Amino acid sequence: MTDYDRFLSPLGRNLHESVLRKMGQVIASRAGDLISFAAGYPDPVGFPWDEFREIANELLSGKDGSVLQYGPTRGYRPLLESILGVLDGRGIKADLSEVMTSSGSQQGIDLVARVLIAPGDAVLVEVPTYTGAIAAFLNAQCRLAGVTQDADGINLEDLDAVCMRERGAGSRVNLLYLVPNFQNPAGSLLSLEKRARLLEWAERRDILIVEDDPYGVLYFEDATSAAETRPMKADDERGRVIYLSTFSKTLAPGFRVAWITAAAPLIERFDTAKQSMDLMCGILDQRLVYESIVRGVLDRQAAPLRQLYRMRRDVMEQALRDQLGGRLTWIAPKGGFFLWTTLPEGYDCEPLLRRAMEEGVLFVIGSAFCVDGSGHDRIRLSFSWPSPERLREGARRLAVAMDRYVGAGFSRPEIVRGGRL
Amino acid sequence: MTDYDRFLSPLGRNLHESVLRKMGQVIASRAGDLISFAAGYPDPVGFPWDEFREIANELLSGKDGSVLQYGPTRGYRPLLESILGVLDGRGIKADLSEVMTSSGSQQGIDLVARVLIAPGDAVLVEVPTYTGAIAAFLNAQCRLAGVTQDADGINLEDLDAVCMRERGAGSRVNLLYLVPNFQNPAGSLLSLEKRARLLEWAERRDILIVEDDPYGVLYFEDATSAAETRPMKADDERGRVIYLSTFSKTLAPGFRVAWITAAAPLIERFDTAKQSMDLMCGILDQRLVYESIVRGVLDRQAAPLRQLYRMRRDVMEQALRDQLGGRLTWIAPKGGFFLWTTLPEGYDCEPLLRRAMEEGVLFVIGSAFCVDGSGHDRIRLSFSWPSPERLREGARRLAVAMDRYVGAGFSRPEIVRGGRL
Repeated sequence: MTDYDRFLSPLGRNLHESVLRKMGQVIASRAGDLISFAAGYPDPVGFPWDEFREIANELLSGKDGSVLQYGPTRGYRPLLESILGVLDGRGIKADLSEVMTSSGSQQGIDLVARVLIAPGDAVLVEVPTYTGAIAAFLNAQCRLAGVTQDADGINLEDLDAVCMRERGAGSRVNLLYLVPNFQNPAGSLLSLEKRARLLEWAERRDILIVEDDPYGVLYFEDATSAAETRPMKADDERGRVIYLSTFSKTLAPGFRVAWITAAAPLIERFDTAKQSMDLMCGILDQRLVYESIVRGVLDRQAAPLRQLYRMRRDVMEQALRDQLGGRLTWIAPKGGFFLWTTLPEGYDCEPLLRRAMEEGVLFVIGSAFCVDGSGHDRIRLSFSWPSPERLREGARRLAVAMDRYVGAGFSRPEIVRGGRL
Repeated sequence: MTDYDRFLSPLGRNLHESVLRKMGQVIASRAGDLISFAAGYPDPVGFPWDEFREIANELLSGKDGSVLQYGPTRGYRPLLESILGVLDGRGIKADLSEVMTSSGSQQGIDLVARVLIAPGDAVLVEVPTYTGAIAAFLNAQCRLAGVTQDADGINLEDLDAVCMRERGAGSRVNLLYLVPNFQNPAGSLLSLEKRARLLEWAERRDILIVEDDPYGVLYFEDATSAAETRPMKADDERGRVIYLSTFSKTLAPGFRVAWITAAAPLIERFDTAKQSMDLMCGILDQRLVYESIVRGVLDRQAAPLRQLYRMRRDVMEQALRDQLGGRLTWIAPKGGFFLWTTLPEGYDCEPLLRRAMEEGVLFVIGSAFCVDGSGHDRIRLSFSWPSPERLREGARRLAVAMDRYVGAGFSRPEIVRGGRL
């Protein structure tokens, strides 16, 4: 028996995959020396190994059986309580009924998709936006309506126009997804003024905002401040915001512990949905995160990580300037992991990627982030993972790839669908 | 803003929750001394704490950054390779393209539901069957068609009749879900003869079988043998079987590491679906499980665990006989965690549960496992978690509850919908 297609659900037949995940597979499988500007991985150098080892040693003493037992779907209660403190530090007042853990923010996005998106809905997203959100939303069988961005985040006039156009065409439009702090991939920081106006707009247009905030803590102190990253959720008096955040960038992504903060009736639905999805997040992971919070490890992480990634950005920007001499342009990011760069006239990101891979350097093609078919003149360069030496060597290779660029001979579908990114 | 209902998807409006999860919440939240025969939790006494601690200590040295980094969705490759060895020990020959990790077998079931169940499908399940499967399948908006069981597992005549009846009524029927080894909740062991006939039947009727096998290793040596638990997947020459198994009962449930073995085209779809669901399973958990396999910890666990749970079963059966003197009856389980007991004439499981909770003992009502409305004369008693003393004390309390049973005064919807189970 070889034909399983006839057994598939409509979703099974039309699954969307994240380009970033595919690139991760390429990295994992490819032999030889490949420098990746592709995946937005934190640098393990920044993980608090000694503290984790000490905590794990205590937790695994065997004195407390619940450390490795089944537990509540919503999360380990002391962890949820400590998350309320983390939220408070960001200006968000919440109570236990408004918070739950998720298996990474990816699951938070998937929970939103399953509980709130009906097939045929139009969901508002930025252009560009995070590929994992694109995949999860499309797997809920909606359409994605793209909204342009300015240097200070989403364009509010375009947002309203797109929303009204979609509604005018008869679509249900309930959700806006955005990444206000150091957006993935654009690196942009949504201005405080726009945050306030977005909350008013959501109320006026009866929209729920999904505020995805993995990078807010990682601002660069030469360019901005904590005050500029204040989540919209902190001023969400009407319960319009579903706030997602994670420990993946501040502690470690391997734990798969993130959280959702939203109005209690929504948390109840997400909780019920998660029950039948995976029962709960890994409990040892939850305990490790909890201990890291109460012992002050999480707080102590922030300043050194801001410094680490700021230095990486500096190295990367300098290396690109040195090696590429103005052929790539970008808006300097004020935090996070990414440079969203514009290619010279006549370059297309997809053949350039093939060329770059031959030179031993990877990035993510801009078109992967753009739901409106644009982005072919862009590439996303992540500077978070490679060492300074590797950043410089990668920039050198990228320069060679651009020198040797040949636009012809690569058909787009071959690259995009072949799963060889 | 308080009315979020208008934002919900059809699924969000009709989410099904697992009764077992709800009971877990009751256990967690209830103060005082409550003995739980409800949740099928392994006993943490059986977790290999010293080995886990030693492994964690080594993994968290910081020498290998990938221990806490993002990783491939399909799973940590050495773990996948070691799982092939575990499968081989069960008679299943598979290669790397046919295996992936899932965040617990619950996610395996959810992946099956999302990729293979179209809204309106009829899915074949045993009566009774695992509540987590009921919830995940119903959340894919299918109907569940129940098939009766005999002492040696699913009734094949009824299975064919139900399948044909559903197809005759115009339903798409593609899937049969079952738990052949020490079924949850019935405790039954599917006979080898029936396993062979099921494979033929699936081929004849063009059905995929989801074989959920969490308990197969935990057979009781006085009653059966490893040979009797041989998975159908081992003889699945036509690729009809999707085999789910887990380390939750042999290592620890807190890790959320399980796996799926199926034909490569199906694994590819599940992999893609999982990408947008949670990216990957926790990688520290995967590494802990991997090291436990290659260091022989997993193999060394099996015999003592079989002994542990067999002794628990002996204590439980004796305690029920002593305390209840024939008022509860059951078919002796040959492995696993559960007694599926029949109440005396005139008793209903739901008011009895209310009565039992007042006496400080919990179980799961039989009706929760039955998609055909039956099961009101049954209760599931799990003997895996409480100590022998607690098993005996719980049986005593159950006897008191039955003495004081009053059938009237409890309406069914109040208990089922109130979420107070």
